[in-house]
Amino acid sequence: MNSPNVPPTPRPVVGPVVGVVGAGQLARMTQQAAIALGVELRVLANSRDESAARVIVDTRIGDYRDLSDLRDFAKGCDAVTFDHEHVPTAHIQALLDDGVAVHPGAEALVHAQDKAVMRERLTEIGAPCPAWRRVSELADVEAFGEEYGWPVVLKAVRGGYDGRGVWVCASADEAREVVDSGVPLLAEAFVPFERELAVLVARSPHGQGVSYPVVETVQKDGICVEVIAPAPDLAPEDAAAAQRIALRIAQQLGVTGLLAVEMFATKSGLVVNELAMRPHNSGHWTIEGARTSQFEQHLRAVLDLPLGSPSLTAPVVVMVNLLGGPDPDVFSRYEHVMANDPGVKIHFYGKDVRPGRKIGHVTALGTDLDEVRARAWHAADCLRGPNDV
Amino acid sequence: MNSPNVPPTPRPVVGPVVGVVGAGQLARMTQQAAIALGVELRVLANSRDESAARVIVDTRIGDYRDLSDLRDFAKGCDAVTFDHEHVPTAHIQALLDDGVAVHPGAEALVHAQDKAVMRERLTEIGAPCPAWRRVSELADVEAFGEEYGWPVVLKAVRGGYDGRGVWVCASADEAREVVDSGVPLLAEAFVPFERELAVLVARSPHGQGVSYPVVETVQKDGICVEVIAPAPDLAPEDAAAAQRIALRIAQQLGVTGLLAVEMFATKSGLVVNELAMRPHNSGHWTIEGARTSQFEQHLRAVLDLPLGSPSLTAPVVVMVNLLGGPDPDVFSRYEHVMANDPGVKIHFYGKDVRPGRKIGHVTALGTDLDEVRARAWHAADCLRGPNDV
Repeated sequence: MNSPNVPPTPRPVVGPVVGVVGAGQLARMTQQAAIALGVELRVLANSRDESAARVIVDTRIGDYRDLSDLRDFAKGCDAVTFDHEHVPTAHIQALLDDGVAVHPGAEALVHAQDKAVMRERLTEIGAPCPAWRRVSELADVEAFGEEYGWPVVLKAVRGGYDGRGVWVCASADEAREVVDSGVPLLAEAFVPFERELAVLVARSPHGQGVSYPVVETVQKDGICVEVIAPAPDLAPEDAAAAQRIALRIAQQLGVTGLLAVEMFATKSGLVVNELAMRPHNSGHWTIEGARTSQFEQHLRAVLDLPLGSPSLTAPVVVMVNLLGGPDPDVFSRYEHVMANDPGVKIHFYGKDVRPGRKIGHVTALGTDLDEVRARAWHAADCLRGPNDV
Repeated sequence: MNSPNVPPTPRPVVGPVVGVVGAGQLARMTQQAAIALGVELRVLANSRDESAARVIVDTRIGDYRDLSDLRDFAKGCDAVTFDHEHVPTAHIQALLDDGVAVHPGAEALVHAQDKAVMRERLTEIGAPCPAWRRVSELADVEAFGEEYGWPVVLKAVRGGYDGRGVWVCASADEAREVVDSGVPLLAEAFVPFERELAVLVARSPHGQGVSYPVVETVQKDGICVEVIAPAPDLAPEDAAAAQRIALRIAQQLGVTGLLAVEMFATKSGLVVNELAMRPHNSGHWTIEGARTSQFEQHLRAVLDLPLGSPSLTAPVVVMVNLLGGPDPDVFSRYEHVMANDPGVKIHFYGKDVRPGRKIGHVTALGTDLDEVRARAWHAADCLRGPNDV
């Protein structure tokens, strides 16, 4: 018989196990948060050389398109989540049916995989969208262009990211090649935006929701290059409106975990552009710039723990992506960057350096927007290295 | 022939390799910084269950007292450093003679291993010390007590930490048992201190030095329980004096990496108590509370990179250690703590929970000292759990 005053034999601590399908930089940065919380991270990787596989002991090699690999992977996980959005929803549903806690679930994630389903649902719930229509023939595109004007934006219904799968067509002629490729498409009216904003929110299975401050994102060639938090000169009522839209989408779509809502700011208001349901490039600034990083927030959400404070830790936070240059020896350039600016934060993802590839990011924090932007850009430019070697 | 305009074939990125001897929580938290910098961390562990071994892929099992294990471990490391101070200096010297970059080196580290050598050297360089003397017989202790008064503090020359190896003896009778144990000892005059302070500095092989703000540490039963940054109500000139002492010790002792200097604040000024040459409990607050965490700073120093900014990220930062209680299920108490305070930061080391053992820490940040302390203590008390289960 146990006396209540005799402590039980201590058992080894094993924190909750969170499985992340995919082993890119998002899973890698999630490991930093997992280490603090004592959460045991497991990743499903293609190879042990991947960004996250280099820093996560419990790396399993497998194919996210294979249900039996996913089932093996999920065994013993307290929650399963994603580094990317490519896992077939049928497989996710099968895991859910097995009793695995998958976040986000299939019914939510489909909206981040299928842009037509996303547009249908957003239209249904009254979230602001550009005019849009599924198109299958050139005549559909022409009719759409007649109705809403040119250029027409064609988007692959599935599989695009970082500007891939998006074509801005000035005429039917330009649309022909895209339509002829046979990729399922939707057409969207071109949005003449003033700038791009993003809102990152988290929602837990309990239904608790939290929004980070609205940020401005700067894209180049379809790739995010810079994020400014908070979005400069954004009226508080406009910021609140953007946050309300994002929280409402998370709630209506049943998102669990993080949801990033990319928006266009136009003269006549906000328009939702894209959704992502995972830690997002527009939230990397939160590692140092928010009291709770997006990676910790995602872990809290998928484990159904109370969400953390999204408040800023500095008046201005700027993140600039580090894209690979021709000289891959980024590390040799640390010395200059660190000596020049002892406060800038370098993040390098342990990926092969290829020109144009996202290989890291830098974050600067401070009070003066121009100064903080200059610091972040200087660091990123230096780390990228010379354009010819 | 290579044209200068043709980029070289990208080669796989492998960041610099830093080997850490020992796999406790210090190495574990260093991994968070290493992930950001793209530094490849390797640890020498006793077992794969240790705190750092759970989160570092390149974990080698071996004995830090065995030179051939250390030599195998050091192969391919750009720098070797320590999670603890127990590696024999003869082995460190052998590695240095092999050409390994070991930081700190043997000539510095001996001062953190041998309290008599430390006192001799500090006295030599004029750093403030209590009266002290090597003692080997009870008569030595009695003579010391006659000269400097009772109580006399006896310290094991080697091996003590967290209050172990320190005996405060009110009389010769109390000293008898300690002396009879045969442990090499030194006697120190008891310092009637007002409070304890600590200064954490970093020094690189280049000779660059950086000091964090002076903190107040609160000990209970010889174990650090709380750290307040910056030390409340410390006059700027006193803070500067403490930082000067620590930077001078680092420079004079040739420390490379971090040096923590624990001090007593007395009515008549500062007295150096202990030295540690590694990331230190008194610096855990820097993870969120300083622009550069002590773990990143240590990596920068041992890789001879420019040191990072030690500036505070909030006016008040309080860290409270989480000591194990009788109920090991710390994780089940996250919900309450997180719901109660969305801004408090939990760190849990993935160690077996045993009563009184350091198993994690919490950090709170803010502007009001009393409020921030109350938040940190509330979180730590809740995580520790009930005293009887």
